[in-house]
Amino acid sequence: MHVRFCAVRRPLAAFSFSVLFLACAGEGRSQTAAAALPEEVKATARTLQKEALAGTRAFDIVRSLTVETGPRPAGSKGYQAAMEWGVRNLKEMGFSNVRLEKTTSPHWVRGAESGEILSPWPQPVVLAALGGSVGTPEGGIEAQVIEVPSLDAVDKLDPAQVQGKIVFYNVPMERTKDGSGYGRAVGVRGAGANRAAKLGAAAVLIRSIGTDNNRTPHTGAMRYEEGGTRIPAAALSNPDADLLAAQIATGKPVTFRLKLGARSLPEVEEANVVGEIPGREKPEEIVLLACHLDSWDLGTGAVDDGAGCAIMMEAARRIGQLPVKPRRTIRVVLYANEEFGLTGARSYAEAHKDELSRHIVAGESDFGSGRVWRLSSRVDPATLPVMDEIAELLKPLGVEPGNNESFGGADLSPLIPAQVPVIGLDQDGTYYFDLHHTANDTLDKIDPKDLDQNVAAWVTVAYIAAEMPGDFGRAPAPPARR
Amino acid sequence: MHVRFCAVRRPLAAFSFSVLFLACAGEGRSQTAAAALPEEVKATARTLQKEALAGTRAFDIVRSLTVETGPRPAGSKGYQAAMEWGVRNLKEMGFSNVRLEKTTSPHWVRGAESGEILSPWPQPVVLAALGGSVGTPEGGIEAQVIEVPSLDAVDKLDPAQVQGKIVFYNVPMERTKDGSGYGRAVGVRGAGANRAAKLGAAAVLIRSIGTDNNRTPHTGAMRYEEGGTRIPAAALSNPDADLLAAQIATGKPVTFRLKLGARSLPEVEEANVVGEIPGREKPEEIVLLACHLDSWDLGTGAVDDGAGCAIMMEAARRIGQLPVKPRRTIRVVLYANEEFGLTGARSYAEAHKDELSRHIVAGESDFGSGRVWRLSSRVDPATLPVMDEIAELLKPLGVEPGNNESFGGADLSPLIPAQVPVIGLDQDGTYYFDLHHTANDTLDKIDPKDLDQNVAAWVTVAYIAAEMPGDFGRAPAPPARR
Repeated sequence: MHVRFCAVRRPLAAFSFSVLFLACAGEGRSQTAAAALPEEVKATARTLQKEALAGTRAFDIVRSLTVETGPRPAGSKGYQAAMEWGVRNLKEMGFSNVRLEKTTSPHWVRGAESGEILSPWPQPVVLAALGGSVGTPEGGIEAQVIEVPSLDAVDKLDPAQVQGKIVFYNVPMERTKDGSGYGRAVGVRGAGANRAAKLGAAAVLIRSIGTDNNRTPHTGAMRYEEGGTRIPAAALSNPDADLLAAQIATGKPVTFRLKLGARSLPEVEEANVVGEIPGREKPEEIVLLACHLDSWDLGTGAVDDGAGCAIMMEAARRIGQLPVKPRRTIRVVLYANEEFGLTGARSYAEAHKDELSRHIVAGESDFGSGRVWRLSSRVDPATLPVMDEIAELLKPLGVEPGNNESFGGADLSPLIPAQVPVIGLDQDGTYYFDLHHTANDTLDKIDPKDLDQNVAAWVTVAYIAAEMPGDFGRAPAPPARR
Repeated sequence: MHVRFCAVRRPLAAFSFSVLFLACAGEGRSQTAAAALPEEVKATARTLQKEALAGTRAFDIVRSLTVETGPRPAGSKGYQAAMEWGVRNLKEMGFSNVRLEKTTSPHWVRGAESGEILSPWPQPVVLAALGGSVGTPEGGIEAQVIEVPSLDAVDKLDPAQVQGKIVFYNVPMERTKDGSGYGRAVGVRGAGANRAAKLGAAAVLIRSIGTDNNRTPHTGAMRYEEGGTRIPAAALSNPDADLLAAQIATGKPVTFRLKLGARSLPEVEEANVVGEIPGREKPEEIVLLACHLDSWDLGTGAVDDGAGCAIMMEAARRIGQLPVKPRRTIRVVLYANEEFGLTGARSYAEAHKDELSRHIVAGESDFGSGRVWRLSSRVDPATLPVMDEIAELLKPLGVEPGNNESFGGADLSPLIPAQVPVIGLDQDGTYYFDLHHTANDTLDKIDPKDLDQNVAAWVTVAYIAAEMPGDFGRAPAPPARR
């Protein structure tokens, strides 16, 4: 029942959110079926699921997070407020061992920013610096714009064409349910500035990596190569990218003024927020439920990733309310700084390295508030019959079985070398990239019933994982990175 | 077939766009039928309609306007560019007597603006000054926020509760096809500051007069009463209004910092742009096709009112291409400054006062790019049988007959005292107020086929009016304003 296909894409930059496709591990399905799940375990899972579907507190949780903290990018005061929120709320929800686990995060700030076409037809445009970009000189950069249709296209240009110009990557992103459109488009954001700087460009503009046509540009992390020239980089909203392209298409030279007040400040000590439902028999074995507590600075991080935190907190809370706790510990980790370098996730992997072998499975919710439509995994293939049983349990939620090559989530990527098994509950991302990393990522975009369905799915999976007699073995060894 | 009902709402402020409901004139339908339209006239109208439906240049026109001028508020350089664009394009399209007709418009500029909740939970919000608002002191205004659910509610407050505070009008607008939701909601925008200032408020925030949940606030004109205290006024985007309301709903005092750099500059001389298709027999009789060339400053004015200008220009152009021109003159007027005081429309009425009796009918397209769904009018009731014939001609476009109490359009309102008949082609405004007066009013929101349908409707109406043997008499006398 587990559909397997060989994903051929290269892993993306580690902190380019959660659409990371692992190359095919080439594992065949084991013929050795694991022990069947006990009926009473499945019965409890079904009850938990049904009760969650009837209504949860998840929307209240994300409302509280967005209203009481708002934007919470790495290094910001907003993130400090979010940590306090996390501790307070996990305690109020009855979690045990609630604690902060330190990490150190970069602190990039946006400052004032603006862009305008100067000629042939002057117009202001709406843009947002990419996370990590350097600023421009105070008076801005004024230069001619050269448009390119892809990341690779820029490499084919004569440096004389590019020298001193603003390179405009006009690469539309395709709307897809599984986020694969994002995977194909996002490379421009991370690497566009480096590639253009090598040819002497003065700055980079990209068409937003997003599927909407709102005047709300999509930010997101970019990185500079060691030793390379650092040039400013910003995303135009999609309507503004259309406008710039339309002026360029007339054949007249187009000049542009870019002003970015972005800068990097000293690193900041911050923390992951952790809470547990301790296991009754094997408290040392961990079922890890992850999300990230940070957000980008433009929106209030309702769908990215307030929704994920609300789903995971509420799913664990509901299991914690059972009269008999499950065998293993359920650990909820609200990660620091997923968006801008995964420092929280790396610190977790380091601090917990001695117990990663006892992390029997991990899952992350970080794909907005859309409904779960597919179960995927990365577990010992010998245990796939258990996944089939879980898939059966999830059927009433409209969830179909997927493959055993799940990425799991960006914050789980530092756990890959330790072969921590992952379960992925793939959400419908059809509309996620209308909002992702924009000012428009706000509470009103969430349907509470969608969150309930997510909670219903995670409560099923987490309870089974924490209670079942066996485990998922270890995940296949990671493929060598190319 | 003409549905009549007595509209009971008061006329809104003259420059609050085009949803102005005239009180019922109480006219019964005349029993004296006008002469039937000649078959050959109807045949030509049908051909024009059919050809327009097959595809027009309207989208190209609005693309050209938005790409080559962009935002063009009253008094701005953008409007100067738009006038040049209008003259150039009307000439290129074959219009005669292309000219600028002077007016004088106010010049209000936005400047930098920001808002943030300071306590209990600090967060930035997205807002936009209302057109005409004064600015704040440079450091901003910091004050507690008091929320009110309506314009009338503020009058019932004790001045001691309001003194020195920021009044937040949180009045959601209802989505409707005919724009009546706007009519009910917009009063807060025009009058909110005056009402709050009387009680000693320091500033006003309003929930955007709009139906979307994007983080793109809706600006629009507000006015100060003569002699009243002028306090700053801004619109929060709807998600930000929700956020502010959510913090207030906790019962904790909410403080806010508002910074508006808005200011008024000296008046600017600008002009309506006029072009004609001269009539072959009665060139002194005018069929007036109107739109407004100005826009608000936040978007590129694609739907408000680039679409309207494109529709009217293209409809008239197509009639001008006929081998035999119609009897009467079709005059296209691209009005200056509809948005901020109707100065262009008032100047037109004054400059042309001697020929208004020869304006046999006027129509305006200023309701976005949605399809025409209803024919309405304000003509001598004795001529309603002609309207019935026109309604019959419009049936293939999905247009239904409406009443004889059409407002026509804001730019036509100065013609009301001269009893110039109007024909209204009511557009579907279901989604118009998602975009209206926001940064999101851009070209990508327009479906070219919708514009074609509008052109097909106007080309029918305009041709009939310019060619038919009779006329529409004079419109009923305007009701006394209450």
